[in-house]
Amino acid sequence: MLKIIVGNKRYSSWSLRGWLAVKHAGLPHEERVIPMWTPEYEAAKADGLLPSGKVPTLWDGSDVVVWDSLAITDYLADKVGGDRFWPADPAARAFARSISAEMHSSFSALRQQCGMNLGRHYPNFAVSAETRADIDRITALWTEARTRFGAGGDFLFGAFGAADIMFSAVVTRFVTYDIELPPVAQAYVEAMVAQPFMREWKAGADAETIILEKYEL
Amino acid sequence: MLKIIVGNKRYSSWSLRGWLAVKHAGLPHEERVIPMWTPEYEAAKADGLLPSGKVPTLWDGSDVVVWDSLAITDYLADKVGGDRFWPADPAARAFARSISAEMHSSFSALRQQCGMNLGRHYPNFAVSAETRADIDRITALWTEARTRFGAGGDFLFGAFGAADIMFSAVVTRFVTYDIELPPVAQAYVEAMVAQPFMREWKAGADAETIILEKYEL
Repeated sequence: MLKIIVGNKRYSSWSLRGWLAVKHAGLPHEERVIPMWTPEYEAAKADGLLPSGKVPTLWDGSDVVVWDSLAITDYLADKVGGDRFWPADPAARAFARSISAEMHSSFSALRQQCGMNLGRHYPNFAVSAETRADIDRITALWTEARTRFGAGGDFLFGAFGAADIMFSAVVTRFVTYDIELPPVAQAYVEAMVAQPFMREWKAGADAETIILEKYEL
Repeated sequence: MLKIIVGNKRYSSWSLRGWLAVKHAGLPHEERVIPMWTPEYEAAKADGLLPSGKVPTLWDGSDVVVWDSLAITDYLADKVGGDRFWPADPAARAFARSISAEMHSSFSALRQQCGMNLGRHYPNFAVSAETRADIDRITALWTEARTRFGAGGDFLFGAFGAADIMFSAVVTRFVTYDIELPPVAQAYVEAMVAQPFMREWKAGADAETIILEKYEL
């Protein structure tokens, strides 16, 4: 049995990615939420439940453990077949892998200035020049994906997959911080917000207790 | 035909990773070195040869392009079979994917303080507390990989593979900056330095002209 351990659904952007990967894999699983900055979280680290000290962490049985959302995605892709997560066409797959890896290692200005917070909305939020550059790069990548490879559906490469999972938290940031977007990117955000797993996560976030005032501007 | 575009072999740590992935895939390929911070590099960006503006970039024919070393590794793994890059045992593969992803997104203190420089050696280099924490985490991961999964060879998971590729530039930093290591980690560094592709890259670096004095302490 798979067990996905995530942090607060309101704040933990990497948890969202790992959780979406598990949902998308479609295998039986259980879920455990361990709120960050709590004694329960520290205990989970001390007990070896979180070998990297971070969420998300995926256990597959009692011996196999994967941390990091991209590693979880590809571990599950190995398990259920890569075509469930990555587009089959080589050019599309190359683009999907490239932008997913770029998301994984980049966009620190956006991530720092616009922390994920599913419980808030900041109209006309003023972004820095560095965050604006990140937004422009992301929307250019989304637009290219949708235009070149997205004809089969509403997501980056048509059907929902790994690239959507990797950018899922950016989607929520664009909503939370009221970022004005070009039309193709805006339509993609709306498709993602309506996606069933995304709605399920959001409902979980809405039901959470706010535990960390400093995260709340 | 594959075409791998890399930056200066002396300095470009991500290029080393992408180049190793191509070598390890074992497919026919050509290589182009475009020195960074040069008009040639700017021209390559303007011409669309480097769609992300960064090296390494892999072209597969004239239509398929992949950037980012981890994306290149998995694109090639899709092409030649994942078992050439990732260990077959599920627990080993989970660990290999997790530490490769952690390398991809982490260890910024080490990367910033100890830039890759294959042409220099700094005896008794003084590392910051943050860099020391990165070193300790990396050597703990290496030691666990070697101890639990490395019995079949001298590399992290026995045979040379994706995890070694991802950590290759860290290996060179530990040599350049004279980092004292625990025995298992030190033996791994020595195996990596002696690895044929690593030696080939080092020979290329040694033959390069030094173009950027500011990189030379």
